[in-house]
Amino acid sequence: MARDMENKHVVVLGAGFGGLTFCQTFNHPQTRVTLVDRQNHHLFQPLLYQVATAGLSAPEIAQPIRSILSDRLDVTVLLDTAVDFDLADKKVYLEKSALNYDYLVLALGGVTTYFGHPEWEQFAPGLKSLDDALRIRRRVLLAFENAECEASAAGRDRLMTMIVVGGGPTGVELAGAFAELARHVLKSDFRRIDPAQARIVLIEAAPWILAHLPAELSGRAQRQLELMGVEVRTNTRVQDITRSRVELEHGQVLDAENIIWAAGVSASPLTQKLGVDLDRAGRVKVNPDLGLPGHPEVFAIGDMALVLDEGGKPVPGVSPAAMQMARHVARIVLNELAVGPEQAARPPFRYWDKGTMATIGRSAAVAKIGKLEFNGFSAWVAWLFVHLIFLIGFRNKLAVLLQWAYSYFAYKRGARIVTGLSEEKATPSP
Amino acid sequence: MARDMENKHVVVLGAGFGGLTFCQTFNHPQTRVTLVDRQNHHLFQPLLYQVATAGLSAPEIAQPIRSILSDRLDVTVLLDTAVDFDLADKKVYLEKSALNYDYLVLALGGVTTYFGHPEWEQFAPGLKSLDDALRIRRRVLLAFENAECEASAAGRDRLMTMIVVGGGPTGVELAGAFAELARHVLKSDFRRIDPAQARIVLIEAAPWILAHLPAELSGRAQRQLELMGVEVRTNTRVQDITRSRVELEHGQVLDAENIIWAAGVSASPLTQKLGVDLDRAGRVKVNPDLGLPGHPEVFAIGDMALVLDEGGKPVPGVSPAAMQMARHVARIVLNELAVGPEQAARPPFRYWDKGTMATIGRSAAVAKIGKLEFNGFSAWVAWLFVHLIFLIGFRNKLAVLLQWAYSYFAYKRGARIVTGLSEEKATPSP
Repeated sequence: MARDMENKHVVVLGAGFGGLTFCQTFNHPQTRVTLVDRQNHHLFQPLLYQVATAGLSAPEIAQPIRSILSDRLDVTVLLDTAVDFDLADKKVYLEKSALNYDYLVLALGGVTTYFGHPEWEQFAPGLKSLDDALRIRRRVLLAFENAECEASAAGRDRLMTMIVVGGGPTGVELAGAFAELARHVLKSDFRRIDPAQARIVLIEAAPWILAHLPAELSGRAQRQLELMGVEVRTNTRVQDITRSRVELEHGQVLDAENIIWAAGVSASPLTQKLGVDLDRAGRVKVNPDLGLPGHPEVFAIGDMALVLDEGGKPVPGVSPAAMQMARHVARIVLNELAVGPEQAARPPFRYWDKGTMATIGRSAAVAKIGKLEFNGFSAWVAWLFVHLIFLIGFRNKLAVLLQWAYSYFAYKRGARIVTGLSEEKATPSP
Repeated sequence: MARDMENKHVVVLGAGFGGLTFCQTFNHPQTRVTLVDRQNHHLFQPLLYQVATAGLSAPEIAQPIRSILSDRLDVTVLLDTAVDFDLADKKVYLEKSALNYDYLVLALGGVTTYFGHPEWEQFAPGLKSLDDALRIRRRVLLAFENAECEASAAGRDRLMTMIVVGGGPTGVELAGAFAELARHVLKSDFRRIDPAQARIVLIEAAPWILAHLPAELSGRAQRQLELMGVEVRTNTRVQDITRSRVELEHGQVLDAENIIWAAGVSASPLTQKLGVDLDRAGRVKVNPDLGLPGHPEVFAIGDMALVLDEGGKPVPGVSPAAMQMARHVARIVLNELAVGPEQAARPPFRYWDKGTMATIGRSAAVAKIGKLEFNGFSAWVAWLFVHLIFLIGFRNKLAVLLQWAYSYFAYKRGARIVTGLSEEKATPSP
C-alpha cells in the first residue's frame, strides 16, 4: 500500500506520435510526468510534404505541445534536448538540467540518414522537421523566381529541375506534389518561363517504388506519377551528390537546383548512448514488452525501437505503430503502479496493421487495408479521411479541410510564401 | 497616332499597397508593365502584428504577387532588388539585370529607423516584414519556454518582460496582443511559471500614445491597455539599448528578454540615389501631381513620398493613402498615353482621409472616421470589418475570419509554433 502512495516520476523524451500518445493515455493520481521535446510543437509528420510543396502553412500541421496537454496538470512540458543517460542512477541529462526518473519512455523518433555520406546533406536536405519543410518550400519557389530572371537556357533548365531521391511514401508524395505545383498551380503565373516544362525526377535504387506495397499497386502508383509528368527511375543508384548535381552509378549526371533526400531514416543518434544492442538503423533491440534489455523501467517506442511483428518482420516506422506501442507501455506502467512490479505481468507488444497508403496527387492515391487494395480516387478519399481523423486539434482539422477544398477546386496553393529570404541569401549559390 | 501605337514600358518598384494597386488600376493595350519586388509576396502589413503575436500564420496575411496578377498577361513580375537609377537614361538597375522604362513608379515603402542609433537594431528588432514577425514570434514564445526551465527568479523576470518602444498604432497593437497572449492564451499551459505575471511595458516619448488621434480617444486607449495589464509609460525617452536592456533618460534601467522597436519609420534608403530633395525621414518631396521634380515620367507614391494634404499637413503613411496615390498616377499615365504628354493635364493629388483606427485587443479598439469617434466593442467591430474588406484574396479573407472567430471564442492562438529554432541557437544568448 505504501508503495502505491509514493510519488513516482515518469520522464518521456519526444512529443511525436509515440510520446504524446503515452502522455494522453497514461494518467495516474500519484505520478508526475515530464515530457521533453526540443521543439515547442507536436508535428503531424504525414502531412509535412504538403508544407514543403506550399500546400499548407506550417501552423496548420503543428500544435503547441503545451496547448494539447494544458488540462493535464500532472504533466510538465519542457523545451529542452536530451544529451545523455545514467541508466544505473535512473537519470537523464538535458541541455539545461537533469531529471531523475522512475520510468523512462524513449520516443525520440528518427533522423534523415545518408548511408555513410553525411556530406550529401548540405546539397540534398531531408524532410523531418518544419524547418526542413520551410527550407525546401523556399528553395523550390525561389528556383522558379530565379528561372524567370535567368538569361541562359542551361541555367533555366537547372533551376527548373528537381530531383527526389528515394521512392518510399515521402519521395512519391513529394514528387507528385511538385509535379502538380509546376504543371497546375504555377501554370499562368510566369511570363518568360513555362513552369509546366519543369522536370521532376524520382530516383529509386530498388526495382520498384513503394516497395512495401504489392507489386500491382506499386506499378499503378508509378504509372500515375508518370501521367503527371514525373520521370520515375527505378533500379537507379546514386553515386555522388554535389551542389545542384547528382551523379548516377553508370556515370550519368543530372543537374538540378533542388535535390531532396527521401531515401533513408535511422533512429535518433542518442540510442548510441544507451549501451544496448542496436540494429543497423540505430534502433534499440527492445524486449517483446518494449522494455530495454537489463532495464525494465526504460522503454523505447516508435521509430527508435526494433520490434518484430507476429510474422517475424520488423514493425514499420509509421505513426499507428508508435501510438500502439505508446498505449502498450502506458498499460504496463499503470499496471505496475497498481500491483507492484513483482506482481505485474508484462505481455508482449502486438502490432495491429491498419493498412498502408500513399497519395500521389490531386485525387490519386494507393492504399492497402487488410486484404483490400485500392487505387485512384477511392484511395485518395480514403487517404484524405484517415489523415483528417488523425490530425490532432479541432482548429487544424477545419483549417486543413478548407485549405484542401480550396486547393482542390481552385487549383491554387495558399502557402506559396517565401520567408527567410535574407537567410537564404547568406548561403552561397552556384 | 504613331506615338500611341509605340510599345511603352512602365516599371513599378515595390508590390506593397501602392505598387500593386497601380498595376491593378493601370491597363493599357500597348503598354507593358514590369513589377519588381524583393519578396515573392504582397503583404497585408496592417495585420503583421498578429503574426508576431502568434494570432495568424504567415501565409494568412500574404499572397504571392504573381498569383494576384496571374490573369494580367501584360504584367511581368520579377523577384529582384533595385540598387540604382540612371534617370537621365531612363534606366533602373536591379541586382540581376537592368530595365529601361518610359514611366517609373517608385513604391518601395519604408524601413525601420533608429534615429541615429543603428546599433540598437540587433537588440530591438522592428516589424516591417514577415521575417521580422516570425523572428519576434519565435523569440517571445521561446522566452516563456526558457522561463519554465529557468532556476533563478531574476532570470525568469527578465525572460517574462517585454518592452515595446513606440506608442503609435503598431506599438499599441503589439503591446495589447502580447498582454492577451500572456494573460489568456498561455494561461494554463505552464507548470512552473505563471504567464499572467508577464510584464509588458509600452514606452512613448510623447505625452500620449496614438498621438494622431484626439486626446480623448488616446486617453481611452491608454486606459484600455492598462486594464489589460500593460504598463504604459508616456513622456519617457530611451537613452540606450543593449542586449536585453533598455536605459531610460533619467538612468532607470529595464531588463527584458524581448525589446521591440515600433518607434520610427523612414523611406527606403534608395531615395538617396535619386538626386532630388528629401525630407528628414528620407521621403521624396514630389510635385503636387506626385511626379519627381525635373522628371515628370518618374513618380513616387506611398511611404516614400512627401506630399501635403489640403490642410498643408503631410499625407500620412497609411495604406489607403498609398492606394489613392497609385490610382492618381495610373490616371495621369493613362491620360498621357491617350492624348500625349503635351496635351495631358496633370491634376494635383488630393488625399481623402477615410479615418484612422487602432485595435487594442479582444473586442477593444479606437477609431475616428470623419467627425465620428468610436471606442470599445463598436470600434473593434468596425476595425475587423474594414480589415477583412481590404484583405486581398478570397482564401485569406475566409481563413483569417475563421482564425479570428476561433481565437475569439476559444481564447486560443493557432500559430503558436516556433520555427527556425536552429537559426536562433546560433545567436549567442546572454
